[in-house]
Amino acid sequence: MADHEHSAERALANGRTRIDFQTEPARYRHWQLKVDGNVATLVMDVDEKAALFEGYELKLNSYDLGVDIELADVIERLRFEHPQVRVVILRSAKPRVFSAGANIRMLAGASHAHKVNFCKFTNETRNGIEDLSQNSGVATICAINGTAAGGGYELALAADYIMLVDDGSAAVSLPELPLLAVLPGTGGLSRVSDKRKVRRDHADVFCTTEEGIKGKRAVEWRLVDDAVPGSKFEDAIEARAKEIAAKSRRNGKARGIKLTPLDRSFTADGVEYGALSVEFSRPQRLATIAVRGPAAPPPASADAMVALGANFWPLQLARELDDAILHIRLNELDVAAIVFKSSGDPGQVLAYDQWLDANRDHWLAREIRLLWKRVLKRIDLTSRSLVTLIEPGSCFAGTLAELAFASDRSYMLASTLPHPASGGGSGRGPGDNKPAATIALADANFGAFPMSNGLTRLGCRFLANPSDVDAAKAECGNMLDAARAQKLGLVTFALDEIDWDDEVRVFFEERASFSPDSLTGMEANLRFAGPETMETKIFARLTAWQNWIFQRPNAIGDEGALKRYGTGQKPVFDTRRV
Amino acid sequence: MADHEHSAERALANGRTRIDFQTEPARYRHWQLKVDGNVATLVMDVDEKAALFEGYELKLNSYDLGVDIELADVIERLRFEHPQVRVVILRSAKPRVFSAGANIRMLAGASHAHKVNFCKFTNETRNGIEDLSQNSGVATICAINGTAAGGGYELALAADYIMLVDDGSAAVSLPELPLLAVLPGTGGLSRVSDKRKVRRDHADVFCTTEEGIKGKRAVEWRLVDDAVPGSKFEDAIEARAKEIAAKSRRNGKARGIKLTPLDRSFTADGVEYGALSVEFSRPQRLATIAVRGPAAPPPASADAMVALGANFWPLQLARELDDAILHIRLNELDVAAIVFKSSGDPGQVLAYDQWLDANRDHWLAREIRLLWKRVLKRIDLTSRSLVTLIEPGSCFAGTLAELAFASDRSYMLASTLPHPASGGGSGRGPGDNKPAATIALADANFGAFPMSNGLTRLGCRFLANPSDVDAAKAECGNMLDAARAQKLGLVTFALDEIDWDDEVRVFFEERASFSPDSLTGMEANLRFAGPETMETKIFARLTAWQNWIFQRPNAIGDEGALKRYGTGQKPVFDTRRV
Repeated sequence: MADHEHSAERALANGRTRIDFQTEPARYRHWQLKVDGNVATLVMDVDEKAALFEGYELKLNSYDLGVDIELADVIERLRFEHPQVRVVILRSAKPRVFSAGANIRMLAGASHAHKVNFCKFTNETRNGIEDLSQNSGVATICAINGTAAGGGYELALAADYIMLVDDGSAAVSLPELPLLAVLPGTGGLSRVSDKRKVRRDHADVFCTTEEGIKGKRAVEWRLVDDAVPGSKFEDAIEARAKEIAAKSRRNGKARGIKLTPLDRSFTADGVEYGALSVEFSRPQRLATIAVRGPAAPPPASADAMVALGANFWPLQLARELDDAILHIRLNELDVAAIVFKSSGDPGQVLAYDQWLDANRDHWLAREIRLLWKRVLKRIDLTSRSLVTLIEPGSCFAGTLAELAFASDRSYMLASTLPHPASGGGSGRGPGDNKPAATIALADANFGAFPMSNGLTRLGCRFLANPSDVDAAKAECGNMLDAARAQKLGLVTFALDEIDWDDEVRVFFEERASFSPDSLTGMEANLRFAGPETMETKIFARLTAWQNWIFQRPNAIGDEGALKRYGTGQKPVFDTRRV
Repeated sequence: MADHEHSAERALANGRTRIDFQTEPARYRHWQLKVDGNVATLVMDVDEKAALFEGYELKLNSYDLGVDIELADVIERLRFEHPQVRVVILRSAKPRVFSAGANIRMLAGASHAHKVNFCKFTNETRNGIEDLSQNSGVATICAINGTAAGGGYELALAADYIMLVDDGSAAVSLPELPLLAVLPGTGGLSRVSDKRKVRRDHADVFCTTEEGIKGKRAVEWRLVDDAVPGSKFEDAIEARAKEIAAKSRRNGKARGIKLTPLDRSFTADGVEYGALSVEFSRPQRLATIAVRGPAAPPPASADAMVALGANFWPLQLARELDDAILHIRLNELDVAAIVFKSSGDPGQVLAYDQWLDANRDHWLAREIRLLWKRVLKRIDLTSRSLVTLIEPGSCFAGTLAELAFASDRSYMLASTLPHPASGGGSGRGPGDNKPAATIALADANFGAFPMSNGLTRLGCRFLANPSDVDAAKAECGNMLDAARAQKLGLVTFALDEIDWDDEVRVFFEERASFSPDSLTGMEANLRFAGPETMETKIFARLTAWQNWIFQRPNAIGDEGALKRYGTGQKPVFDTRRV
């Protein structure tokens, strides 16, 4: 079954055996970052010989996942390493070409799973660019010097301000539909309709016009913000950058910290990081992510946090968790469920949350909270079943409790022995000295980490009775045992040790037995109750339709448009509308 | 390409050559309606021998499109023929079974297009039940006497109040995922999360538990509103119905009108109705729907409207238009684009709109407006390219102008001759005495017909500049020529007669050349800018994911769950998550 997927899978270039999301500026092949005072210029200059997979070249600033991994990295470094930057100018080093978008040969040869995960990651990166503007005060100007086609224009759409050179040929376009029989899959349709608010009939014309729209009409139709003659283009960009930088609320004096390489080692059945471990139980199709609480109390001062830099526990853990999730998404496709476990002192985790709250006006503390928000969103959007096991010795408190709330289900072990607070024993029966399982809430659970639908995870969980949110909030700082946590609705099941092993095992077996596709669809629906935003529209409406189209013979069949692109043969379509 | 679709298509039962959406109580095979004062009881009693297609039987109150066509019909008749009804009790005639949901053998053997269109229509019908409650004051009580599985429970979810018999075996369930590797496709997931507001982890357990949830837990988890012992079930239903009827705002005194059979005849290349014609241009893959304005001015009184009944022009046209759209959706799959044209006196169309506004408190006038709202929503959700041609002699005014606003594009002919108002000639040049093309707005364009996202079509169109809505509103009642209409943003292109034929022809050719799937995806995204509602979530997020799953080998492959259901063989899944 699905033979076309297997046969289509390309080999990674240069003998690589996995897709690595870690990189650093010295290793970039496709981007240059120049920082001049509070203005950063981010230059796209894709090395056509440095594709992620074998079998295609990245001509005309077209991109693949490897190019986007570098983009995501540089955006993070702008946050943490360059806090003085107030505006980013995004542009191309290629003459008369901004970007040709996602590489078509890459797409045509990619497995369905890779296409889907590629689009998801590129969408997350563009949302990150918007978050950088909205929440960190660093706006992006996109300077389009020529052709911005497909994903190239979608990248521009992530910017706050789009400037197009008006030279009679430079144009923006979304040619996916006429050229490839697919959709602009990196947010293009949603950003055209909901961010740029292009009138729907203009959008219809635009998205079916292969050559795109240029000059004055592009401005009139709201596709770009400005069309500037070539002779005035550089001056206009500079003036606009200065103007935006002057209005930024970002504090430009701070010195950044260095995002040092992750402390990480891969084994046959896992990945070991500094603050978490990933363990694969391949026969059960499980990945267990065990996070470790802080080894030391919070630092004495904000300066001490800056001195710790990437080793500051909340930052270290967020970066490691993000890398682990991405590794599972792209490299471990057979994992059915991700299991979150934790170990450590929940009181210390709460102490870090309180410390970050107290320092919320410090740029680094703020960026760390924003990073956690994005990592948690990435978890929400990960198409694997998510479950949290809250066991003795765990530390699902404050920020870490969000892992339980992001999960499709949580299981909490109800100790049958006296609670440690009462001076009694502990966790899972005689001989186990771990403290009984608890869960604890902090202020951070009530606003710091909105989901992509704009709600907190508890707000979304308790949509039926908002008063349940208040009841939970009243317990902030308390160590809640299983009975209390269940009563408050914070966990799915509180089980005693007699039932624990069987219930959890049966759940894992059941999950692994279900169709992965229907789980993806179910979870994508049940995780996002309540309002929708442009972001959820991108990941739900747009992505789901694109995934459908990516399965249709009209796109991927032997006579389909993606397969026939560049062969000189026209695609043959099944003309029936569905 | 897509051979499995062709081979899978079933023959319609009894030698029928098309699916007919017209029926009447005397011909029902699956439902009984009993009206007792202001309480209606709607009994589901599916005739297992009366399936729409050959090759399966409708056991255990399972349903196919034929069953749902009767349900949609009876809901319309409750509106128009039984205005005294204030509450509907929805129940089953089968012992210990409410409904087994959509027939699995029907689904397993249906073409992809039929599955998709079947789900769309059933969703529209359930939305219609909710609209009946929200806007006409007729609430539905669903009385579940046994098993309500899958689509059976999804039907219950459309009700305002769900009562489950508490007998130790009656249960509600959504077993689609564990049993069939698909999703509950008729709104189930969205209604569980957004209407019933079931907590997400409970929803996860519910949707993966084949046998479902019963009794007290079903109430605790918000899946039903009440679980009642068998001995008290009938009394409880009756009491609840009386209570709801007493609170209904529906005026119970009025006499209904008869929804007489449509005046309709099919030819090889079209369908002729009383107030519209459908013409198929099969080589161009076009369906032209030409609506005709009223032949007479509005009636002198509301009583005269009641006397006209189904022949009252706005009601007649709405019913015919609905039938035409459904006919194209289900029976004319090869149509790429639907072209709306009109002929008649735009002043008369405006007169009808003013008349309906003036009589907005009359139950029949209100029901007619609500019907138009649903028909226009049905058009929005029709996965064909929609275009309106505004030509001399047309009457796109008020309600009929919504057809242009529902379209992906509109083309308006700019007369080169003096405007008739100036005493000059007319339409398309010498010899053509039709009045020049105009478009006109009425109050109805600014609130009577919200789209499924809650916005008016003009509000959604002018999302970027709400002041454009005000500018349009200021023109209410004026006959707007092409130049004015374009300036106001009401039409996509105003063309003179030199360009008209070529531009329109090229558009049609282009549209027919594109991949139908990518058009479906693009239009589903561009038509619904702005907010999302539960209704749009059902048609976008949920439907798009379901359509994807309906294409995946894990569901429809030879070893997939839908194909293997009932064979005794377990499905074999590609275990990779996408």
